Amino acid sequence: MSKFIEDGKRFSLTTPSLLPNSAGYLWNRHMMIHMNCQGYAVAQYMNPEPKKYAHIPALAATSFMQPEQPYFAHHPGRFFYIRDDETGEIFSVPFAPMKTDLDSFKFEPGLSDIRWQVEHLGVNIEVTLTLSESHVVELWNVKVTNLHETVRKLSVIPYFPVGYSSWMNMGAHFDRDLNAVVCTSITPYQKLEQYEKNKHLKDITYLTSDVTPDYYELSQPTFEGQGGLHNPDALKQGANLSNGDAIYEIPACIMQFCIELEEGQSKELNLMFGPALDNQEISTVKEAHTGSALTNQHQQYKQYVEQGCGVIDINTPDKTFNDFVNHWLPRQVFYHGDTNRLTTDPQTRNYLQDGMGMAYVDSQTTKKVILTALAQQKSNGEMPDGILLTPEAELKYINQIPHTDHSVWLAIILQAYLNETNDWAILDHQLAWEDDQTPSSVLEHMNRAMAHLCSARDERGLPFIAQGDWCDPMNMVGPKGVGVSGWLTQALSYALQIWIETSRDRNSDAIIAEFEQTVSELKEKTNEYFWKGDWYARGITDDGVTFGIPEDKEGRIFLNTQSWAFLAGIPTTEQKQKMLHSVDEQLDTPYGVMLYAPAFTSMREDVGRVTQKWPGSAENGSVYNHAAAFYAASLYAIDEADRGFSVLRKMVSDQNDEGFERRGQLPVYIPNYYRGAFYQFPTKAGRSSNLFNTGTGAWFYRMVIEQLFGLRGCEQGLLIEPQLPSDWNNVSVTRQFRGATFNVSYHRSEQPISTSIVVDGTELESNIIGDVISGKVYEIVVSIGR
Amino acid sequence: MSKFIEDGKRFSLTTPSLLPNSAGYLWNRHMMIHMNCQGYAVAQYMNPEPKKYAHIPALAATSFMQPEQPYFAHHPGRFFYIRDDETGEIFSVPFAPMKTDLDSFKFEPGLSDIRWQVEHLGVNIEVTLTLSESHVVELWNVKVTNLHETVRKLSVIPYFPVGYSSWMNMGAHFDRDLNAVVCTSITPYQKLEQYEKNKHLKDITYLTSDVTPDYYELSQPTFEGQGGLHNPDALKQGANLSNGDAIYEIPACIMQFCIELEEGQSKELNLMFGPALDNQEISTVKEAHTGSALTNQHQQYKQYVEQGCGVIDINTPDKTFNDFVNHWLPRQVFYHGDTNRLTTDPQTRNYLQDGMGMAYVDSQTTKKVILTALAQQKSNGEMPDGILLTPEAELKYINQIPHTDHSVWLAIILQAYLNETNDWAILDHQLAWEDDQTPSSVLEHMNRAMAHLCSARDERGLPFIAQGDWCDPMNMVGPKGVGVSGWLTQALSYALQIWIETSRDRNSDAIIAEFEQTVSELKEKTNEYFWKGDWYARGITDDGVTFGIPEDKEGRIFLNTQSWAFLAGIPTTEQKQKMLHSVDEQLDTPYGVMLYAPAFTSMREDVGRVTQKWPGSAENGSVYNHAAAFYAASLYAIDEADRGFSVLRKMVSDQNDEGFERRGQLPVYIPNYYRGAFYQFPTKAGRSSNLFNTGTGAWFYRMVIEQLFGLRGCEQGLLIEPQLPSDWNNVSVTRQFRGATFNVSYHRSEQPISTSIVVDGTELESNIIGDVISGKVYEIVVSIGR
Repeated sequence: MSKFIEDGKRFSLTTPSLLPNSAGYLWNRHMMIHMNCQGYAVAQYMNPEPKKYAHIPALAATSFMQPEQPYFAHHPGRFFYIRDDETGEIFSVPFAPMKTDLDSFKFEPGLSDIRWQVEHLGVNIEVTLTLSESHVVELWNVKVTNLHETVRKLSVIPYFPVGYSSWMNMGAHFDRDLNAVVCTSITPYQKLEQYEKNKHLKDITYLTSDVTPDYYELSQPTFEGQGGLHNPDALKQGANLSNGDAIYEIPACIMQFCIELEEGQSKELNLMFGPALDNQEISTVKEAHTGSALTNQHQQYKQYVEQGCGVIDINTPDKTFNDFVNHWLPRQVFYHGDTNRLTTDPQTRNYLQDGMGMAYVDSQTTKKVILTALAQQKSNGEMPDGILLTPEAELKYINQIPHTDHSVWLAIILQAYLNETNDWAILDHQLAWEDDQTPSSVLEHMNRAMAHLCSARDERGLPFIAQGDWCDPMNMVGPKGVGVSGWLTQALSYALQIWIETSRDRNSDAIIAEFEQTVSELKEKTNEYFWKGDWYARGITDDGVTFGIPEDKEGRIFLNTQSWAFLAGIPTTEQKQKMLHSVDEQLDTPYGVMLYAPAFTSMREDVGRVTQKWPGSAENGSVYNHAAAFYAASLYAIDEADRGFSVLRKMVSDQNDEGFERRGQLPVYIPNYYRGAFYQFPTKAGRSSNLFNTGTGAWFYRMVIEQLFGLRGCEQGLLIEPQLPSDWNNVSVTRQFRGATFNVSYHRSEQPISTSIVVDGTELESNIIGDVISGKVYEIVVSIGR
Repeated sequence: MSKFIEDGKRFSLTTPSLLPNSAGYLWNRHMMIHMNCQGYAVAQYMNPEPKKYAHIPALAATSFMQPEQPYFAHHPGRFFYIRDDETGEIFSVPFAPMKTDLDSFKFEPGLSDIRWQVEHLGVNIEVTLTLSESHVVELWNVKVTNLHETVRKLSVIPYFPVGYSSWMNMGAHFDRDLNAVVCTSITPYQKLEQYEKNKHLKDITYLTSDVTPDYYELSQPTFEGQGGLHNPDALKQGANLSNGDAIYEIPACIMQFCIELEEGQSKELNLMFGPALDNQEISTVKEAHTGSALTNQHQQYKQYVEQGCGVIDINTPDKTFNDFVNHWLPRQVFYHGDTNRLTTDPQTRNYLQDGMGMAYVDSQTTKKVILTALAQQKSNGEMPDGILLTPEAELKYINQIPHTDHSVWLAIILQAYLNETNDWAILDHQLAWEDDQTPSSVLEHMNRAMAHLCSARDERGLPFIAQGDWCDPMNMVGPKGVGVSGWLTQALSYALQIWIETSRDRNSDAIIAEFEQTVSELKEKTNEYFWKGDWYARGITDDGVTFGIPEDKEGRIFLNTQSWAFLAGIPTTEQKQKMLHSVDEQLDTPYGVMLYAPAFTSMREDVGRVTQKWPGSAENGSVYNHAAAFYAASLYAIDEADRGFSVLRKMVSDQNDEGFERRGQLPVYIPNYYRGAFYQFPTKAGRSSNLFNTGTGAWFYRMVIEQLFGLRGCEQGLLIEPQLPSDWNNVSVTRQFRGATFNVSYHRSEQPISTSIVVDGTELESNIIGDVISGKVYEIVVSIGR
């Protein structure tokens, strides 16, 4: 058991320096905050595009969320200086900016709050952050307790820097009516057209309190002086804040509360921090979160997060794994499905996979995702690179680069949705096309999507890669429209197989036969063009160079062309063994399987973009968890249960469980990658990207439900087909499915018996529980042989 | 005399905390560095667009140079930690990041170098920065002297942070062959097209030394640890740097040199810091700046800067003013004219005015500027908003916003060029048009430019303002094509008068008559539509609202419509008195004259962009020196010599000369603005923008030469018409003009005599010295009556 776990819904970290990047995150539909244990914060909200309300003290670039976000003294954060006004001693909570050696420190992210407990100089400080369900506002509670036997005079000084808001206009003043620091700014613009847009932006950042501060200081440079944030001039012994405004200076919300505490006495402060359009909005938000309204809000936000409780509760010998799957994993799945990673133009494949995860949390969202995506499909079957979620949204960043794989994910999400809901009526749902207002059924949309994928192939029958496909975006393989993708050859086969299985009874025989013909063609082509040495190559460039082959010095073996070959049922038994051996030897590491190896250390102009990324980071040979999840899925597909679980388990390992150091990552979420290039840069391998935006969660969850515990929906009911690790002898789960509850216990017999399933005392003849009755509780015993 | 002045070519500041933003700057044709006295730095170079080689530790936005640049602990800088290896005591030079209370501190920017001298812990450190004439590289020299009587063991640790270079790829390693820290990165891109451009960018930043370091550390976070930059973990007593690379971590160039010094002994280090494309370039640059080559480079760079020595050397009772005019002012003029503010698309009016300044430094540049600008003129006479200097250049930022005043500046620069050079042949120079390859003479280009300005007027005869004109960019006055500009009504008159005077003998009588007719029309219209109360209004909006009038609560009186009315000779004597009184009362401050007052404190939708800027900053009612310079010129034009000098003098005041505090500004350059809104925000008024990019320098210099000392060129020769302040009784200047040297001494008689001019012992009958003979030295005595 990890020493960081207190209970399943709260993690505890007891020293700030051990894992300096450990963080928790909270969100609602409109915002997200990523709180580092030291007090640093990354927060964004939608207005209508992603926007920040606290900045670094320099002109910052707007970009997509970056991995491995560096923190530095002046990075945005939420800090509290605590000063003993009698002795002048001072420290900061949670830890930064002063980073004093504290008597005691606890960082405890929970499902719907993040809490710190700090003891120092005979004072206990409990700081709790939660969000509102309805508004974009941080709700902070600070409780200060005197642990000494004497009366104490303390200053509690929240220091919430707001940073460089705008070169055009920025400042801050204290508003007595609102009892708030109001930091004003104007989003810079030069073109007149921008003004009309900008005037609706929430350019105010405020901090308001339920107690009137004794003093304040709103200019960050004045507060800090020459002393620095570790020793701010404004907090020198005997000094109180000077009630100075920020007049075209870097603003900060800094209030000083002078409190006197008897022995053992506590005092509390409630603070709200967030963006606003105007004072009226501050006032409205304040009212909605003060007094009894605040208690209600806490309750509502808790309920909101609990919507993401998922459909399975597991009890295995592995407590870390239980806690992660029971609480943190569905929460991460919910975050993705509910917020679309806070973007207005999610990449099509992300949107579909995040939506897929919601099949196990809130399947109505999955339906909406499928229909929204298909409504943006062209009538020739082609899917766009990104899905626009608002009328003003535009395709940005990577969504401007042509990729060829989007339709693959349609078949997969639809399968998951049908497995879970049995809502076959969706196939008859009528939808127009992006370029043609004539409605067609979802079945027809899907057929055209598949047919379009099939048609985008060269004369050999291999799918074009254009400027990239999934997960290892190499932008120079096929920009001339010649290069092809080994992965997509397999992925197309896999998607077709799923779609054939899904639509067999609803499509004409001719259509099915044509798709089946393509599947068999793709298998043959994969072996003909991509089997090189002991594994499948990744692709063939515009100039006819096959890459991802034994002769390559870098990018020699790619994980995805092995995983998806397994998923598509392409290799022979002999090939499988060679592939598994090659992956073990070249891609597996203590931190997970790498996307490919060796990572590129210099530019390869016929491959492109990934080869310019730092080796081991992002897609350049990192342990890319999204790909690792598919590898796990493929291992289950070829009946390699122990290997499959091992891949999953490494994604949520902390340093104690595996005897190696996973730097900077608490298992409260799966990050998009861990540093790879293990054999090239071993000292930095395993480091977390600290970025919780990833399609991994949805896959991980689906695999746990449908493959590990084998509780998969089908047209007839619940199919039971577990693939437990061989050292789990007695485990149990509760599965919510189509309104019914299934209490399932699994027992491994020492005997080589065949698997038996007993439902409410009666042994099943098949492995399907048919006619699931909503509201019913099923008691199931699964006996598995050696 | 200012306590900061040591000699005319070097300023000295003796405490770092007094003026925390004091800075010097150095440049060559390819780069610019702005060094703050504490060690913080802002540096850019052209590659081909402006680029940085040292960054903040977060994703930074690319923008035009910002005023009031904030510095913070992790801002780029060039720092040296000095540690006594025996006691563990440590401090940093120049001052940051440790900001220790030093025994002695001197900051001494010079014309071609910047020097610090620091004494602490019995060690003297002299740090000198200079640039190369030919390459983009910083040349640092550090000399450490032991002031104690014992042998000392010291570590000298240059800490040059490189910051967040790229989310795609960044790192650093030590290259033993080059004896250099090589920080590599790849400028991020997503679109394939960008790759071909990006591959030519200098993505390497390096620090190399002439001494092999004993240790190094290249990861900024590892160096700093939890201790912070004021107390980095890596420099704790007894510790040496661990020779760690930066592997996708924020890179920094940190070397440790362990030195032993006898009593009084000194050791020196030479360092080079800059960008490079590859190792070969580092090696080439290194070779060109090592050993005797370095001495040559110092000499060459000094000579390069000395090209900007200008054409006048003054000797007045005001030493600060002398030093500024003799050394710092022509240097600033040269910087602008030689580098075009390091942009590839200077605003047309900036390009022309910076070029105008070069008439007094290197008049061939002025000619080139005139011809380059006119080659981008349309055949209908219209000038573009920006001038493209390279084939790949594009109009960016404000140059995408339509402004209507560009041609005004053509007449002015041409006048200055002709005054100084007498090169009338330029008017016959043949040039094609942007949209018509048929060449026309400069005379014709100018006629069409003027005619186009004259035609862009409404039915009343008032010039349209579109989305803005000069100096107070209000983008909502005339976007519908209706609003008109009071300033441009006057400026057009002024430009026409100059052009009439310039071209009278070369244009047909009909053309001249037409221009003259317009001049008289404009005078009449100005009085009819804009004279409101006691001054001229600024404009009339699309909706017919006249603004800049007594009834306005904000933006009541604008400086430019008073200055340019004077320049255009529009007001009557009575009007003049009222205008001067109004300016004195409402716009004048201890820090200079404000652009307008009161500054806008909230949005005025019929005026626009400036009203959204912070009051007192940038163009929103600041002391905008460029406008102030024109006010001074206009005061000379109406024979208000004392007032004119007072306006000039305030631009270069430091806190001692005027008895008020000019925060953060050493008189080594004129910044683009000082904070205004003096009556609204008195505590922050006068603060410098710390931005030396401004058209002010050229005007200031021209005014000193042509108006203050009255040594203006004309077709016949040198016209002498001084307007000295009434308290200067004996001053002298040396003026270089058309190859001749004029030693002029001015004496004010106590008698009311009329001015007499004696040249080489003979009294002139006129005030023109005709037939200037190149190479000749003229001795001139000017006697002025009371």
